[in-house]
Amino acid sequence: MAMTEIGKVGVVMRNVPRADAAVVERIGCYGVATVHEAQGRTGLLKPYLRPIWPRATACGTAVTVLAQPGDNWMLHVAAEMVRPGDIVVVGLTTDNDDGMFGDLLATSYRARGARGLVIDAGVRDAKTLAEMQFAVWSRAVNARGTVKATVGSVNVPVICAGMLVNPGDVILADDDGVVVVPRERAAAVADAAEAREKKEEATRRRLAAGELGLDIYGMREALAKAGLKYVD
Amino acid sequence: MAMTEIGKVGVVMRNVPRADAAVVERIGCYGVATVHEAQGRTGLLKPYLRPIWPRATACGTAVTVLAQPGDNWMLHVAAEMVRPGDIVVVGLTTDNDDGMFGDLLATSYRARGARGLVIDAGVRDAKTLAEMQFAVWSRAVNARGTVKATVGSVNVPVICAGMLVNPGDVILADDDGVVVVPRERAAAVADAAEAREKKEEATRRRLAAGELGLDIYGMREALAKAGLKYVD
Amino acid sequence: MAMTEIGKVGVVMRNVPRADAAVVERIGCYGVATVHEAQGRTGLLKPYLRPIWPRATACGTAVTVLAQPGDNWMLHVAAEMVRPGDIVVVGLTTDNDDGMFGDLLATSYRARGARGLVIDAGVRDAKTLAEMQFAVWSRAVNARGTVKATVGSVNVPVICAGMLVNPGDVILADDDGVVVVPRERAAAVADAAEAREKKEEATRRRLAAGELGLDIYGMREALAKAGLKYVD
Amino acid sequence: MAMTEIGKVGVVMRNVPRADAAVVERIGCYGVATVHEAQGRTGLLKPYLRPIWPRATACGTAVTVLAQPGDNWMLHVAAEMVRPGDIVVVGLTTDNDDGMFGDLLATSYRARGARGLVIDAGVRDAKTLAEMQFAVWSRAVNARGTVKATVGSVNVPVICAGMLVNPGDVILADDDGVVVVPRERAAAVADAAEAREKKEEATRRRLAAGELGLDIYGMREALAKAGLKYVD
Amino acid sequence: MAMTEIGKVGVVMRNVPRADAAVVERIGCYGVATVHEAQGRTGLLKPYLRPIWPRATACGTAVTVLAQPGDNWMLHVAAEMVRPGDIVVVGLTTDNDDGMFGDLLATSYRARGARGLVIDAGVRDAKTLAEMQFAVWSRAVNARGTVKATVGSVNVPVICAGMLVNPGDVILADDDGVVVVPRERAAAVADAAEAREKKEEATRRRLAAGELGLDIYGMREALAKAGLKYVD
Amino acid sequence: MAMTEIGKVGVVMRNVPRADAAVVERIGCYGVATVHEAQGRTGLLKPYLRPIWPRATACGTAVTVLAQPGDNWMLHVAAEMVRPGDIVVVGLTTDNDDGMFGDLLATSYRARGARGLVIDAGVRDAKTLAEMQFAVWSRAVNARGTVKATVGSVNVPVICAGMLVNPGDVILADDDGVVVVPRERAAAVADAAEAREKKEEATRRRLAAGELGLDIYGMREALAKAGLKYVD
Repeated sequence: MAMTEIGKVGVVMRNVPRADAAVVERIGCYGVATVHEAQGRTGLLKPYLRPIWPRATACGTAVTVLAQPGDNWMLHVAAEMVRPGDIVVVGLTTDNDDGMFGDLLATSYRARGARGLVIDAGVRDAKTLAEMQFAVWSRAVNARGTVKATVGSVNVPVICAGMLVNPGDVILADDDGVVVVPRERAAAVADAAEAREKKEEATRRRLAAGELGLDIYGMREALAKAGLKYVD
Repeated sequence: MAMTEIGKVGVVMRNVPRADAAVVERIGCYGVATVHEAQGRTGLLKPYLRPIWPRATACGTAVTVLAQPGDNWMLHVAAEMVRPGDIVVVGLTTDNDDGMFGDLLATSYRARGARGLVIDAGVRDAKTLAEMQFAVWSRAVNARGTVKATVGSVNVPVICAGMLVNPGDVILADDDGVVVVPRERAAAVADAAEAREKKEEATRRRLAAGELGLDIYGMREALAKAGLKYVD
Repeated sequence: MAMTEIGKVGVVMRNVPRADAAVVERIGCYGVATVHEAQGRTGLLKPYLRPIWPRATACGTAVTVLAQPGDNWMLHVAAEMVRPGDIVVVGLTTDNDDGMFGDLLATSYRARGARGLVIDAGVRDAKTLAEMQFAVWSRAVNARGTVKATVGSVNVPVICAGMLVNPGDVILADDDGVVVVPRERAAAVADAAEAREKKEEATRRRLAAGELGLDIYGMREALAKAGLKYVD
Repeated sequence: MAMTEIGKVGVVMRNVPRADAAVVERIGCYGVATVHEAQGRTGLLKPYLRPIWPRATACGTAVTVLAQPGDNWMLHVAAEMVRPGDIVVVGLTTDNDDGMFGDLLATSYRARGARGLVIDAGVRDAKTLAEMQFAVWSRAVNARGTVKATVGSVNVPVICAGMLVNPGDVILADDDGVVVVPRERAAAVADAAEAREKKEEATRRRLAAGELGLDIYGMREALAKAGLKYVD
Repeated sequence: MAMTEIGKVGVVMRNVPRADAAVVERIGCYGVATVHEAQGRTGLLKPYLRPIWPRATACGTAVTVLAQPGDNWMLHVAAEMVRPGDIVVVGLTTDNDDGMFGDLLATSYRARGARGLVIDAGVRDAKTLAEMQFAVWSRAVNARGTVKATVGSVNVPVICAGMLVNPGDVILADDDGVVVVPRERAAAVADAAEAREKKEEATRRRLAAGELGLDIYGMREALAKAGLKYVD
Repeated sequence: MAMTEIGKVGVVMRNVPRADAAVVERIGCYGVATVHEAQGRTGLLKPYLRPIWPRATACGTAVTVLAQPGDNWMLHVAAEMVRPGDIVVVGLTTDNDDGMFGDLLATSYRARGARGLVIDAGVRDAKTLAEMQFAVWSRAVNARGTVKATVGSVNVPVICAGMLVNPGDVILADDDGVVVVPRERAAAVADAAEAREKKEEATRRRLAAGELGLDIYGMREALAKAGLKYVD
């Protein structure tokens, strides 16, 4: 599906290639901040998406939904497209905070094997979702429900919280936010994340022992060159 | 008191009829999302009102307060009007996030029998309020205190977070937000909530078993008619 | 350092006088709301700064940082200036929510004796920071990292979340927000906070017993004079 | 229609009493700030509603609309209810900035005699509306259009930008914002506005001549009593 | 360039295909609202982008820029890539309102043949830009300038104000906002816009003559079916 | 007056030194963006302060006001402190958008010789202020008036829109925003602005002739070193 299909309404793509499951598992071992760095500081969704309960983490493949404001019809359509290991990612045609998703849809998505939801809108039944430990990142918690009147799409490219997500991409989410890793780049990003993590572990030990980042990273010369002056 | 009294300052209504206590208890059995749907998707306060500690829930009858920005004088006046089972609902004459309410007022309100506070402004002493398990929904947590210089009103109709609240109305609040049920409609809404909850319970079981909402709700024909196309 | 130095870039002040440690400990016994009142309702940072984990509290002396948007170079420079008992306070030259601080810097700051961080920007590794119980108040949690390309300053006066902070000032932070107490006023503010707390304790007991603030504070006459009418 | 009808969907009230035309004309002689003061500082809609072209002013009687997010169906229904001298006032069931109104609807409304539009949503064709000199106050200008799928209501009480508006009330709008005057109070408010304007005219002359408000309003004693100190 | 290149830094694409000039001229005859509808309600940038002077309109082909927060280095790089008829479209790696563009860059862009700027950040020298009649849509006017320290990219796909823009796409902007038309769809969209405009012109005449949209669009039956009740 | 006086209430300083009038005139010849750069990118107030009518510009010496939310008492007190050539700068103890200033105060300020108002709150009578050509920068236009009940201060250091302003400092404001120049630095900043302006004029001519900033500023080598790649 071409980029020109972004925002196209009225289509459900039944069969979309997913990122390789083994690679998804590998990416799921790292945090969002690490993976974001590992793919060159790209792919982060806007930070207004927040987990609705603390410590939620999820990693899976995207089933994308394009929804209309105040209308969750397509979230029902998406349920049928969910396969085990998927995360449903909902972009909207316009800004809207209504509560499009609650414990009934969560029950359905879980029964289909979904690992979570990332939605650029509101959700409700927050307490029950937390009790179910169903992982959700949303822009609001809002009791206001929605109608089922206007179609959108499922499994077309969508923009969710300022970032393009294609169906089948890897979605990783935790307390720090949500990052998308394009399917084609997933293996390379997993490698880069692993390398970064190892390097950081060594740095962490040195910092804990009282060494300064200024010395570990060799910043002093560059700082002086940039004009930084120390005054006693 | 007529609708033309909205925002009138300088008045305290001593005796206002409250919704029936038994009906309040019935409504308190349901969630805000359910009750909002049960009364035809009306009565919800804006979702920027959030509980200041997780899992807070409260249901009671409204004592309304109209307060001035940066001034909590009327919250002291309201304490005397509180009866057991009440929830104090504070609307402001203008947007303001100052911390109008803290642990002293909470101690007083609790001693008078109040079940909670809904305030379109800020509160402080958040840690102590959580320890007291005094239920509060506010637009901010803010250490900045207030003066006591300009009068407002108690028990007049107020607009709180974008919704009209009359004294004596039923207020229900939980993790999903705050909903007001007009006193006259409370019994009918309790009935409707009960009916809705029963129906949802049955649906939940079917969804958990893997059935799709598309089939349970019979959406497929309407979707096709609305032009939704499935592509393999 | 004069007020005209606010926002000056390219300077690190190595030696700045800190508020007296004993006074810092005294102020640390009170809440932010109490200390804010005790110094005449001044010194509060804007309430959008929030703790990244519940129940965080910290009290210490300010090491100030002026940082550029999307650039955390100066946070590394600041590590070397930290002494036991300090809290790092970061103001920015412009609004920015990027994640300038994570678990590596927290490890370094803790190794140097820092008690926490107050930052008018974003932080990341929120889960790890909570596990470390490293106290942070920020305007956002954001996985997006930063570059190290443009210098700012350390230990110059900065404006952080709308309030001036000088190096060596006392910083107190809890669930209610963050307050700065100028070094020169710290002892007097500690005294005032103690006096206020004592008075409040007595009031709390009377309110818990059902007395009204209207009577305890003697408000009835002033309310009547201000025109408040009671209607039966 | 009772207050309990706020937000009720699915109803069009054909015949609603309007405020007296002569009184509307009188109120239209004053500015929004004056009328807001004249009715005791009540009735102001939130200031995020702004005129879409400078110097727009309008005064008329409210035809109210309750619309769904992203759906302007009811704005078409309202056209038939418009009588000469009306202003259409649109409240929404939830926050939404879509462009619900453009030059076609403006053409229709004008043909029916409408004097303007106040809408708690977006509008489009801003340039043409300005050329037509059709007066509009909105929360956004937004090219995004809407569907016609879900019913709302016409001529029920609505909350628009945080204020209750009943059909037939007087709406006054200018560069300073929008104020609603309840139909029953309109004549009294017109009188009060006239009195206020006269008094202000005299004050304006004295201020222009260099007299101080401190003296004209006799504030010096109250300021001293409130503790204000002058320091040379 | 593939979609996986979104946000990639460090690249300047010298030669990118532009939409056909004749098609660009055709699209430039219509308003943003019309073109947005004509391409199926897709392609609109978020409405927070506003023209910095009234009545600005522009239509051209996109030269895209990916810039870092507080850093306008890439806007200088882009100048060399501008060809007559282009509009420079700037997306950022993170939210930032700094004034990245002023009258010097405008002078340079104009000398290269640019028709305008669309920037998801701030601009300055607003008065001079208006006098030059250089068309700019931005999220802020802000005197704060930027550094030139960190590279981004030119002519890679960028997300600007929530919408994907590819180099060479058609950009149309006016008082109603900014819409992007993918290069491949430009001719079809021009046709659809022309058809829509013609139809609207006929509708406009009927509405001006007092006919109702309810009748012209044949809405009455659907409204009744949806449950709308008229009450006398 | 020391920095520790920021936010102190209850004080009016009668005699404060003003920046030299000749220097003020010199600074008034330049734009805000130029002066902000000329003093090392410091002193800019947050960009949410906007002129209430287009093309407003003002330069003068600050009379500072600390006001309470919803209370304009101190703006009346300030009138007496105004001397010809002053600009009144109002900071608040908390965020508030009420309309604290209107045409009566403008009449009074003008009669005293004031050149304008910079206020971190709302103003009203916007149309009349524009007709009077009284220059105002504010965070909102809002018809809601204020009480006169709680004292603040005049001519103490205030924080206005995120920047410290001392009485007597130079204030420069135009379409690009508001910048403060500390009194002690005013002459040096005027010199630097003049030098910058001259340099920019030469650059402007070269850019207009089609030269690229890349060449004028010699950026190509640094870009290559930073890793920027050109792809054909």
